[in-house]
Amino acid sequence: MKKWIAGILGLAAGALVSILIFADFNPKEEVADQANVATNAQKVYVPFGQKDEYYLFASGGHSGQMFIYGVPSMRHIRTIPVFSPDSATGWGYDKHSKALMGKYSWGDLHHPALSETEGDYDGKYLFATDVANNRAAVMDLKTFSVSDILEVPNIGGPHCAAFVTPNTEYLFLPTRFAVPLGREYASLDEFSTKYKGVMSAVTFNEEKKKLEIAYQVALPPWSYDLSDAGKKISKDWAVMTTYNTEESTTEMEINASQADRDYIVLFNWRELEKMVADGQFDELNGIKMVDPEKHKGAIYLVPTAKSPHGVDVTPDGTRFVASGKLAPAMTVFSFEKAFKAINEKKFAGERNGIPVLDYKSVMEREVNPENALGPLHSQFDDKGFAYTTMFISSEIVKWNVATGETVDRVPVQYSPGHAASAEGDTVSPDGKYIIALNKIAKDTYLPVGPSHPESMQLIDLTGKKMEIIQSAPVDPEPHYAQMIKADKLSPLVVYPKDEKRPNSVWTQKDARITRNGNTVEVHGVALRSKFIFDSNAKRKDVISVKEGDKVVIHLTNIDLDQDITHGFGINSYNLNMEVQPGQTQTIEFIADKAGTYPLYCTNFCSALHQEMNGYLLVEPKA
Amino acid sequence: MKKWIAGILGLAAGALVSILIFADFNPKEEVADQANVATNAQKVYVPFGQKDEYYLFASGGHSGQMFIYGVPSMRHIRTIPVFSPDSATGWGYDKHSKALMGKYSWGDLHHPALSETEGDYDGKYLFATDVANNRAAVMDLKTFSVSDILEVPNIGGPHCAAFVTPNTEYLFLPTRFAVPLGREYASLDEFSTKYKGVMSAVTFNEEKKKLEIAYQVALPPWSYDLSDAGKKISKDWAVMTTYNTEESTTEMEINASQADRDYIVLFNWRELEKMVADGQFDELNGIKMVDPEKHKGAIYLVPTAKSPHGVDVTPDGTRFVASGKLAPAMTVFSFEKAFKAINEKKFAGERNGIPVLDYKSVMEREVNPENALGPLHSQFDDKGFAYTTMFISSEIVKWNVATGETVDRVPVQYSPGHAASAEGDTVSPDGKYIIALNKIAKDTYLPVGPSHPESMQLIDLTGKKMEIIQSAPVDPEPHYAQMIKADKLSPLVVYPKDEKRPNSVWTQKDARITRNGNTVEVHGVALRSKFIFDSNAKRKDVISVKEGDKVVIHLTNIDLDQDITHGFGINSYNLNMEVQPGQTQTIEFIADKAGTYPLYCTNFCSALHQEMNGYLLVEPKA
Repeated sequence: MKKWIAGILGLAAGALVSILIFADFNPKEEVADQANVATNAQKVYVPFGQKDEYYLFASGGHSGQMFIYGVPSMRHIRTIPVFSPDSATGWGYDKHSKALMGKYSWGDLHHPALSETEGDYDGKYLFATDVANNRAAVMDLKTFSVSDILEVPNIGGPHCAAFVTPNTEYLFLPTRFAVPLGREYASLDEFSTKYKGVMSAVTFNEEKKKLEIAYQVALPPWSYDLSDAGKKISKDWAVMTTYNTEESTTEMEINASQADRDYIVLFNWRELEKMVADGQFDELNGIKMVDPEKHKGAIYLVPTAKSPHGVDVTPDGTRFVASGKLAPAMTVFSFEKAFKAINEKKFAGERNGIPVLDYKSVMEREVNPENALGPLHSQFDDKGFAYTTMFISSEIVKWNVATGETVDRVPVQYSPGHAASAEGDTVSPDGKYIIALNKIAKDTYLPVGPSHPESMQLIDLTGKKMEIIQSAPVDPEPHYAQMIKADKLSPLVVYPKDEKRPNSVWTQKDARITRNGNTVEVHGVALRSKFIFDSNAKRKDVISVKEGDKVVIHLTNIDLDQDITHGFGINSYNLNMEVQPGQTQTIEFIADKAGTYPLYCTNFCSALHQEMNGYLLVEPKA
Repeated sequence: MKKWIAGILGLAAGALVSILIFADFNPKEEVADQANVATNAQKVYVPFGQKDEYYLFASGGHSGQMFIYGVPSMRHIRTIPVFSPDSATGWGYDKHSKALMGKYSWGDLHHPALSETEGDYDGKYLFATDVANNRAAVMDLKTFSVSDILEVPNIGGPHCAAFVTPNTEYLFLPTRFAVPLGREYASLDEFSTKYKGVMSAVTFNEEKKKLEIAYQVALPPWSYDLSDAGKKISKDWAVMTTYNTEESTTEMEINASQADRDYIVLFNWRELEKMVADGQFDELNGIKMVDPEKHKGAIYLVPTAKSPHGVDVTPDGTRFVASGKLAPAMTVFSFEKAFKAINEKKFAGERNGIPVLDYKSVMEREVNPENALGPLHSQFDDKGFAYTTMFISSEIVKWNVATGETVDRVPVQYSPGHAASAEGDTVSPDGKYIIALNKIAKDTYLPVGPSHPESMQLIDLTGKKMEIIQSAPVDPEPHYAQMIKADKLSPLVVYPKDEKRPNSVWTQKDARITRNGNTVEVHGVALRSKFIFDSNAKRKDVISVKEGDKVVIHLTNIDLDQDITHGFGINSYNLNMEVQPGQTQTIEFIADKAGTYPLYCTNFCSALHQEMNGYLLVEPKA
């Protein structure tokens, strides 16, 4: 193993990395033979009248949003706005979403996680985290919209998240960046003493549709990268990778790549839960903070090849596979062996007060496919095979988890980070498809200037050999994705007509405008093809206010028909929102500019959509 | 003609419209026969190593952005952020784009228009308008980014835009909403006297890459809907449709649908140019405003079937075709006949001081395909055929412009607004494809909650019958699109290394941090896989400031390699930008929160991307 570590060290110097990636993996302008092309074309073609078989939920990275694709067509069906505003849907403009977004106007949406029941995707909710601004979000798959966003204190970049436990008891948010405990100012000279990598345990209250912080754990000041929850025999446990155990504070590309071994953090969340119930925590900014140096028995370190990225639990829950991005090997670890070592307290020592397991006592096998470089992340099928993305050698390697034997390899273009197989993170993967989430598209698609799209490639797993059957350009930038069988979801077609919903109005005659001091409140309706704000007025589709008034507009879309969404925009007032069929939305603003402002339906709704407009008249101050 | 006008009047009442659309055009779950499916699958499949043949530039409506697709694959390749911020690319966050976006955080991007030379797309620039906040934008197709955004005063919603003249002399921005002249406050009781529909003539200064307002025209207070520039014999002229010539001020769906005839506005922009040069204008808010009641000879009205939507000039420039959304007919008008009537001053009267041509003297033919309802917009091929979208009967009808004969029809799902044929707005369309921009997708794709995607359908024009060969879901909401041959574009791969560019730094050793009073200025570089802010500091990748400092960070990406874009985000500080290869970007903010803030590369760049981070340290005030 020494040999490859030495070889890889060169890579860490930075310059070499680019040469490797961009010299060796130039495009091969091979056009697949025609018969093959014809077969693949049909495999991904979903003719009108039929639908895709799977949903793919792909993180949108620094777009802040969630991208939804149909598989096998790889068509981009929808974007759910999450951490960044979206004027098309009015996300961040209407009162509800504006409040959820709080003081932030963007996010870096990382790993999406579907809710699970008994270790299987249940199709109910989707979770994701914001590395940029330390938040978690939950989306309701009945409406494909965000139910809640939670800002988490004390942490710096919840990258290594979210992965949920088998019954969605928790989503864990370990962080990529160490920060001083409580996020105070502290010199980097005090990094090892004052900085911490804080992991948060977040729960979802399904009744209230709210995310809540259960507790946090003050881990050593390392970078936590990826994680996975245990399954079946390991269901109370979770694993996550960590790098920069060197605790370096500058030039990480070199300094965080020094040690031969980093760690997998193995923890028992049932034990953590008990500790918290037993009062074994300190309070910090209102959060219960567990210090594993003081409270032992829940967290262990497993040495692994340097700078690991992914760690993935096998569908049967017996093993976890770590992939070291600076080591050309996957390491298979045994949960049973780990449990035995823990029970027998056979430790190789401690690091930062946390027991370290002996590598050999827990490791089952090192898997080292010839010339495969940069293993990052593994997914699984239904037949005992793992599929690991090779970032540097730009391929996916299929191998047998039980034997370590390499079974097949397929080149992808270029530089795959994660991959997502059909139901791949569940106890029962489907084994039909895997999608490579490539970080670089380079010359794959029509050129669009210096900034390129990323690229996802769909690979058919049903034949003798893995085969790429479709390439799809992607807006920046998916970091992870999950693929779920389409029949597990049953979204709403219209919002129910709920007459008790606050501020809703369901008939034209109830539409009204009221004034209370300097506040003008509109209870209006939108229907094909008009707005009614005040049923008693001479012009029912006009809102007249005085300069400086606060204006509150509640709008209910009373068209209870599929796909009849109305928009509501006010010219020059920088306001827009969407009102979906049966929905009530509220927008608030100060009428701080006198004048005449057309308002109109911004979302196409009918043959007379173009006529669906009115005016906001703002009378100047005397 | 009386008969259909009467029939259509019922539609205008609103309720009937929905019944027509949503009862008659339920999905037909016909799965095309297998042989056909296989052929169509191959027609749209672009295997790895090959590229799409056309770019499609589709307006993004109230998303504020421009969507780019490849044809025939219909893959969404890229989004250019224009009027709304986009954290993925940093649009609206870096200093340059923040200044261009000004006080607005969204737009309603309507009709895109490619720059033209001699009436042909030249592949250099793309223009678009913002109906919501009265702006025009120009994108440079070398970089696929916005060069300039212009806010236009005195206007209310430039919907009927932009269409460019044959050598990109002007883009015209007529407006959908009448507003009081100068946008003062005025009662709607004074609509006919005080309100105007103002059209703006905008020029593009290619050297400065700036949009400029040449002049405006104070048109009657009607709604201007769509427009087209003349070609060849009609090259100095342009046409636009107008509705609400009733000048109604409320319940437009009924009141703006009363008159049997609305108008096409026919104007000579060379004459307008001369008028302005001759001083025949008033000044309003610093803009030259032409009043056609006072200054005659450039603008004429052509009566057309009620509430027209599209008006389109044939590729040979001899005719213009109007489509009345409340009339089941396309009307073909002759430019030559119009010119003759104008030269002979044979008018049927005046309306609002503008001469009205006699319908019969200008009209060449009414085309009325059986049961075709709701014609909206026509595109053309290279063989003399027009293709008109039928909104209500959900189809595209192919007909012979010279004879009026209906040649073919193809159903689309559902409710097509515009259509875009290959090079369809030029003097030489390609005739290979047309894409229907459908407003309603309904049950076409996997369900995604009450708010649905829109849908575009690609139609093959090369066979005996038109055939739909692909359906593509679309984020809300394309209003128009143009399709250009891919080989006309040659985008930059990296920005040139320009050592004279202000604030650029091209070597690590020149990276520096300087303080001037309370302003800290960083001249930094980004390269695989690190930031260097200060080459002389102990930690080169750390920025240390004091609470309350103004921080200005200039960052140059010195990786001059294809597709190596770096991001720059600061945790908890709500800041992110993208720095493309060879680009220099600037971000400014006040360090108003003391504490420790990780900063990191947000756009994947290399194997050690995860290690590309540092810290912003904000020392608290004493």
